[in-house]
Amino acid sequence: MGFTEASAVRRTGETTWAAEVAPGWDIMGNADGGYTLAIVARAAAEAAGRPDPFTVTAHYLAPARVGPVTVEAQVVRRGGRLATVAATLSSEERPLLALLGTFGELGTYEGPERVEAAPPPLPPPERCAPVVPTETFPPPFMGRVDLRLDPGEDAFGGGSGPPRVSGWFRFPDEEPVDTLGLLVAVDAFPPTVFRSELPLGWVPTVELTAHVRARPAPGWLRCAFTTRFITGGFLEEDGEVWDATGKLVAQSRQLALLPRG
Amino acid sequence: MGFTEASAVRRTGETTWAAEVAPGWDIMGNADGGYTLAIVARAAAEAAGRPDPFTVTAHYLAPARVGPVTVEAQVVRRGGRLATVAATLSSEERPLLALLGTFGELGTYEGPERVEAAPPPLPPPERCAPVVPTETFPPPFMGRVDLRLDPGEDAFGGGSGPPRVSGWFRFPDEEPVDTLGLLVAVDAFPPTVFRSELPLGWVPTVELTAHVRARPAPGWLRCAFTTRFITGGFLEEDGEVWDATGKLVAQSRQLALLPRG
Repeated sequence: MGFTEASAVRRTGETTWAAEVAPGWDIMGNADGGYTLAIVARAAAEAAGRPDPFTVTAHYLAPARVGPVTVEAQVVRRGGRLATVAATLSSEERPLLALLGTFGELGTYEGPERVEAAPPPLPPPERCAPVVPTETFPPPFMGRVDLRLDPGEDAFGGGSGPPRVSGWFRFPDEEPVDTLGLLVAVDAFPPTVFRSELPLGWVPTVELTAHVRARPAPGWLRCAFTTRFITGGFLEEDGEVWDATGKLVAQSRQLALLPRG
Repeated sequence: MGFTEASAVRRTGETTWAAEVAPGWDIMGNADGGYTLAIVARAAAEAAGRPDPFTVTAHYLAPARVGPVTVEAQVVRRGGRLATVAATLSSEERPLLALLGTFGELGTYEGPERVEAAPPPLPPPERCAPVVPTETFPPPFMGRVDLRLDPGEDAFGGGSGPPRVSGWFRFPDEEPVDTLGLLVAVDAFPPTVFRSELPLGWVPTVELTAHVRARPAPGWLRCAFTTRFITGGFLEEDGEVWDATGKLVAQSRQLALLPRG
């Protein structure tokens, strides 16, 4: 099942939506955080009446499992071009994810441009390393996305590299990546700390914020994730996603707990 | 009036607090965004029963003016160590700020440390440039904080420098900066784009997220703010705050609209 179908929502009331956490979008049984964020953001964008998540923040409350979920989404403020929405994703048992986001339509603002950065250098996708899903690890989720990792980085290494991971992202079967699909891209790669000397293990995201800065052009997305501060039991992970035309399309930052090993 | 008094909140019900936007904390009549964030975060921390804002996100809905405001704060999930709260700051007329935050107690998590960055190089505070408040610009708010800007950067220049601002931060009268005070530090400096060739003007914050990573030691805080992407009418501004012992205490990122000149 492709991303659009797997993240579909169905309005069931003024402020409520129904959805399904689809099989295969999980990592060791827990649905991928970017995927669950996309489900909530899709409902919130409908509530907002605006297609694009300019800035969305998710706080992860409990792991999401395969099965029915609901979204409650309230418009906090609707302005001329921006609308802010607070939403919660819940299973029958408990709240899973709280979202606060501001939605709009990309292309309605303009101004001078100045970019003080460049896309990460990467060999072409066919010379990068695909991540092949297994029943366990790498997880089934890696079949729902098409990742090609920089072969110079041993992303599942448990070595002593810098906490940095880069590679290409697309959906399989030529499904285009829209601005909601970018929310999957920013949380699809192996955690940066898998490259460090820390023990491999679950890296629970406490909070993830993504800014969508432009609609991606068709084709591979070039992604880079960096961690600069592993302190006090926490780490941040900063992401950048660039499209095939060399334009930055999304930035992300998450705060996560260190794996306990 | 110092920060703690100016950002005080008084519980008025199970999920409601009253506060006052104090005079002098404004920029051209609009209360500083870090200051209003701190008011809401103080109420949300009380709701959470946890002192420290591990990660808080504010979406700015309308400018706050001097006078009475209320905070409505709901605990979304209370776990063993973390509690997530959704809150709204409102005037009598309208909602002003929506917050989503996860609170805890710093020092209750631990693990290996790895820092891939260093505090920004700065001359000592006495050789940096104080920002002196006026009735207009620089605004009265600059009397509520004590900023010393890197003299090598012309932060009010309207020149063609890189969009980067750095300097020292403290509260006047030796008031200590606690983890709520850090929320002021991350939004107190002149916007990075004032150093670029863009017209000076109001830079409305759409969203600001701050991660508080440690309690600051007493003394000056060393701060740096950088913008890498001015695109599509938006810009991000990334902040770092380091304490007097050389420890990173907060990271921030905001998404703002370009000034219209």
